[in-house]
Amino acid sequence: MPKSKRTVFFVSDGTGLTAEALGHSLLTQFENVEFRQHRAPFIDSADKAHAIVARINECSRADGLRALVFTTLIDPEVSAIVQASDAFCMSFFESFLAPLEAELGVQSSHTVGRSHDISDSSNYQKRIEAINFTLNHDDGITEHELEKSDLILVGVSRCGKTPTSLYMAMQFGLRVANFPLIPEDFERGKLPGNLTRYRDKLFGLTIKPERLNKVREERRAGSRYAALENCRYEVAEAEKMMQREGIRWLDSSSKSIEEISTTIMQELHLE
Amino acid sequence: MPKSKRTVFFVSDGTGLTAEALGHSLLTQFENVEFRQHRAPFIDSADKAHAIVARINECSRADGLRALVFTTLIDPEVSAIVQASDAFCMSFFESFLAPLEAELGVQSSHTVGRSHDISDSSNYQKRIEAINFTLNHDDGITEHELEKSDLILVGVSRCGKTPTSLYMAMQFGLRVANFPLIPEDFERGKLPGNLTRYRDKLFGLTIKPERLNKVREERRAGSRYAALENCRYEVAEAEKMMQREGIRWLDSSSKSIEEISTTIMQELHLE
Repeated sequence: MPKSKRTVFFVSDGTGLTAEALGHSLLTQFENVEFRQHRAPFIDSADKAHAIVARINECSRADGLRALVFTTLIDPEVSAIVQASDAFCMSFFESFLAPLEAELGVQSSHTVGRSHDISDSSNYQKRIEAINFTLNHDDGITEHELEKSDLILVGVSRCGKTPTSLYMAMQFGLRVANFPLIPEDFERGKLPGNLTRYRDKLFGLTIKPERLNKVREERRAGSRYAALENCRYEVAEAEKMMQREGIRWLDSSSKSIEEISTTIMQELHLE
Repeated sequence: MPKSKRTVFFVSDGTGLTAEALGHSLLTQFENVEFRQHRAPFIDSADKAHAIVARINECSRADGLRALVFTTLIDPEVSAIVQASDAFCMSFFESFLAPLEAELGVQSSHTVGRSHDISDSSNYQKRIEAINFTLNHDDGITEHELEKSDLILVGVSRCGKTPTSLYMAMQFGLRVANFPLIPEDFERGKLPGNLTRYRDKLFGLTIKPERLNKVREERRAGSRYAALENCRYEVAEAEKMMQREGIRWLDSSSKSIEEISTTIMQELHLE
């Protein structure tokens, strides 16, 4: 059976990232439908609402099936315009704000675009500083100010330390350093540098040798570094070292950076 | 009036990031309530559901007010256990999946943890490659393979290029290079290197001199680099250059990386 097709709009007065995240998670539940997804951000006036409705209706006509529209719109006037489109509309805020107001016994402020603004600037500043810290402590560059880190990732080269570190900094404002475990460390039988000092901050990533081989081949095809045999050796030695040092670890092979990060935060009680 | 306090749980069978994003965007609408927020990820069995319900009920008792619980749970048994807690529960999937099934005329797959898994691995791979590309093209390191970039950010040092580049790579899988505009470029009156070749990929960030002065003072206190007068000069010259070269730009001073990224994508029609 060919997949059916449907056009989807995420309409928001802010970035639309929240509408997109929730809409996307709902859509992944329908594997046999192909969704063409469009984010429509900053819809914060009646004019912009009419413009996006024209686009939505045009898609509905072209598809011969009404579009799906997920909204996080706060302004009642803007919301009403979008709701009156030819689409099937699901309004997250309208579904949940009224019950929440009743439960909390207060009116909501109906302020547009609050999710990703920087009104909580101390929290935002923390994220930016964490990104800088993490970039400055990528790939074992330095042990300077390592005591200020929230977490230190270790693992063989190309097991996913850098993307995970950056994601955790960006999303959660965590200062994440990362250090590669390399053959010299295995020969010495010791963690690099003075890492043992920070044992409670250490967490390991490991990876299946076959997966590592594939990743390294893309980087340095045909090299000894990428050879499956060498990948097997490094992974086995790294796991042995982590076990000996009492470092918890997880296998990153089939996990996304979101899943890896969430698992680490849970294990180390970082919040 | 003192802020009232309320404990909030984001309960999910996956990472809980979607539940947290939507829950957080709803909670920002209630400025006079202080929310203590907890993410409860990977609740994918009846045992784990009972354990989190025990924690939720304990908080409700301790607060003297029932907790708020936002869920993205797919499994009906797990969901029912959480719904039966002493909390005020809002189930995103239960509110929207049934209407979506009716609209699409198909049953959803009820597969847990789909949002952030890597089952769509080509898309995930694209994000990881974009992060690597972006790191390798940070701060004007190289023009190598610049033709493969989706976007090239330019602007004075410390105007927000690096965090924005990394966010766009991580969130959208875009390959974003960034180049600083420095006093030598202003003296020569030319964009750095061969950037003019890639004019359609260029986008500028600018910043208020007062804000730049503050950011640079944190980095190099008392330096000529950080001095307000120098910040004024650099920002004015950078804006002049961008105008002359026909480069669109935005002021990052009061925008989050999410807002900056969304605006750029809209302006350059990147999706």
